Amino acid sequence: MIFGDCKVPCAELVVIGDEVVSGLILDRNSQYLGETIHEMGIEVSRITTVGDSASAIEDCVKLALERSDWVVMTGGLGATHDDITKSVLLKVFECGLKRDSKVADMLAQIFQARGREVPDSVSSQCEVPEKAEILYNEKGTAPGFKMRQGNCVLFALPGVPLEMQHLFEKFVAPEMAAQKNKTFLHRLIKTTGLSEADLWAKVGPLEAMLKKATIASLPSHLGVRIRISVLAESRPEGESRLDEVERFLTQHLFRNIYGKDEDELEAIVGALLTEKSLTLATAESCTGGLIGHRLTQVPGSSDYYKEGFVVYSNEAKVSRLQVEPKLIEEFGAVSEPVAQAMAEGVCRVTGADMGVAVTGIAGPSGGSDLKPVGLTYIAVHDRSGTYCRKFVFTHDRIRNKERSAQAALNMVRLRLQGESEI
Amino acid sequence: MIFGDCKVPCAELVVIGDEVVSGLILDRNSQYLGETIHEMGIEVSRITTVGDSASAIEDCVKLALERSDWVVMTGGLGATHDDITKSVLLKVFECGLKRDSKVADMLAQIFQARGREVPDSVSSQCEVPEKAEILYNEKGTAPGFKMRQGNCVLFALPGVPLEMQHLFEKFVAPEMAAQKNKTFLHRLIKTTGLSEADLWAKVGPLEAMLKKATIASLPSHLGVRIRISVLAESRPEGESRLDEVERFLTQHLFRNIYGKDEDELEAIVGALLTEKSLTLATAESCTGGLIGHRLTQVPGSSDYYKEGFVVYSNEAKVSRLQVEPKLIEEFGAVSEPVAQAMAEGVCRVTGADMGVAVTGIAGPSGGSDLKPVGLTYIAVHDRSGTYCRKFVFTHDRIRNKERSAQAALNMVRLRLQGESEI
Repeated sequence: MIFGDCKVPCAELVVIGDEVVSGLILDRNSQYLGETIHEMGIEVSRITTVGDSASAIEDCVKLALERSDWVVMTGGLGATHDDITKSVLLKVFECGLKRDSKVADMLAQIFQARGREVPDSVSSQCEVPEKAEILYNEKGTAPGFKMRQGNCVLFALPGVPLEMQHLFEKFVAPEMAAQKNKTFLHRLIKTTGLSEADLWAKVGPLEAMLKKATIASLPSHLGVRIRISVLAESRPEGESRLDEVERFLTQHLFRNIYGKDEDELEAIVGALLTEKSLTLATAESCTGGLIGHRLTQVPGSSDYYKEGFVVYSNEAKVSRLQVEPKLIEEFGAVSEPVAQAMAEGVCRVTGADMGVAVTGIAGPSGGSDLKPVGLTYIAVHDRSGTYCRKFVFTHDRIRNKERSAQAALNMVRLRLQGESEI
Repeated sequence: MIFGDCKVPCAELVVIGDEVVSGLILDRNSQYLGETIHEMGIEVSRITTVGDSASAIEDCVKLALERSDWVVMTGGLGATHDDITKSVLLKVFECGLKRDSKVADMLAQIFQARGREVPDSVSSQCEVPEKAEILYNEKGTAPGFKMRQGNCVLFALPGVPLEMQHLFEKFVAPEMAAQKNKTFLHRLIKTTGLSEADLWAKVGPLEAMLKKATIASLPSHLGVRIRISVLAESRPEGESRLDEVERFLTQHLFRNIYGKDEDELEAIVGALLTEKSLTLATAESCTGGLIGHRLTQVPGSSDYYKEGFVVYSNEAKVSRLQVEPKLIEEFGAVSEPVAQAMAEGVCRVTGADMGVAVTGIAGPSGGSDLKPVGLTYIAVHDRSGTYCRKFVFTHDRIRNKERSAQAALNMVRLRLQGESEI
């Protein structure tokens, strides 16, 4: 869901390569370029990906030059027979090749360092389009090109991500920035526990905020991220508009917002535990270790993550966590009393300050009418008491595990933030 | 690395979404579709990604319908105001909406399970283009559409990867397969423990095999997948060519091949444990629960995965796994004797037939000259003894955890397959 709009200059990306259209490699370059260019206040209107076909590439480049202010091409600049970007550029810009001695020197240096001559296959890189300005590549053998047609500027960059980013940052970004007369800023607000529809219903009318910023929501099964973007006269003015929209969202979504920008829920939980000098232990049935895995993604987590148990069987719940067998008999392993007993038990046996426990039916089998697949109880225990919530997730085992781990970490966060209702 | 080539009919992908062009999300759908369609012997000639602009989408779809045999669209099928794929289809195919009662029933069922009415915002999903065949979505609320113009068939699928793959596999792939007059077959051979370069060096000359099939290698930090593809007159002929290439690769890579096609290492380990009626327990230090998490991704894993411990601290290694404190004092927690004692201890305390233990320095800190970040010991214990291997991975915490878990599961597999050297 995106609200609002900012009108700005526009860029197109043209991605070249059989290996991309045939899915052999994942194109991360376009995400990097899309995000970086968008953040500079330039709208990325289109990304076209084509295989190593000269006529298809020519067609795309010509249209992009007509429609856009900027064109950024990636790929097809290597020195092998299927790297045809350069020959397409010669045709589109109607020019020939010239030899560039600086490229030649740079190649000689690279191969000297490897103790060999520049191979014939690579030396063709010294031949560059007559009408191009050369983007000298310090990270590889393929130079990039800058070419101009009317009001449109085209950059051709190599496809290797490291080389592409190097040339983009050194040559393309400064030029794009110099052309702006405004500042583009954005902020990401991360929520969990509400569907996209429920989230916007809870927030209510947005009109006043949409005069300040563009607001977009990005849902996943683990939560909704909200992106606020502004095109401002200056950075301070932009920041103040971002702050205003963030305050508005926080008023309505306080309990569901766990962080912003690069924040990860497991790192937020870790920071809260560190701040309060508390330790945490985990008792996982259906999540099978996923909560421990997420907690330990964070460097330094050994300081507060005390210990974890993966207790699939009733026997393990009893022997490791001191869950009373009669609770399991009476209520079943997937029940509120057992989840609570697991959270309390894991604190008792490990000496941790907080315990989080999950018991559920991940599926695909094991469900019944009374206890369907997806039924999950999550309990958090600390000195002030034991809190338990019931969830009914879906039929998908893997997603159920992911949702359970997310909900468990969020409950730990809410307890650490002193929320009584988690 | 790709060896060989096959020629064929053509498909275009049209990807919709401001969140994709602006780099807010990484488009993995196109890689999945590109790879899957390519493997069915259809050339993916172009991928066009546009924002939520009706005129740009209309323009792309019309051109794609003219140029291609197949068009697959993803995204823009949600029920919010910026989901405009449906209205563009009405315009391109010149038709109105009709109400589909099966979609209405499916939505009612989804929301009934959640104990609520279908929200107004979602109920518009029952309105579908008159000229469309409906692709009923069992994994979400947005139905897909199949529409035809001349010789071209267009499929519009939701952008959520799980829903997109579900509809693609159920409706699109079978139809694409039925239209071919040759048979396109492929097989994926999955390896771990060798780099791409070492793997091909070990295999040796491929010339004879390239007369039989196209062979591509897809490296990642968890291993190299080898894709064998053939375009054959018939399925038996194709299968026999695939078999021949597979036998050739197996001769050279036997110990490194853990499975094929959809096989996952954790499921292979699970099948071997089930076959031998053995149970497994885990003792994880630096992997923090990841091995347990992977084992429990497999439905039915509760039958053989007995129990797991996440023992970050020395204290937990001693109290839970009966590791002798003097071993830790003498050799350090990250050492062969401690890994072995953990694997033996986890069997003893849980009664499991096999134990796997990991202890390592995941990083980014905690390393020293003698014990660098990335140093990891993995031990497997069973009735015939205890086996331990030392690894030195990288400086990346998250990848170190992933590589350690992969190596640990692979060592369990090799033991279960009776290999003496694991």
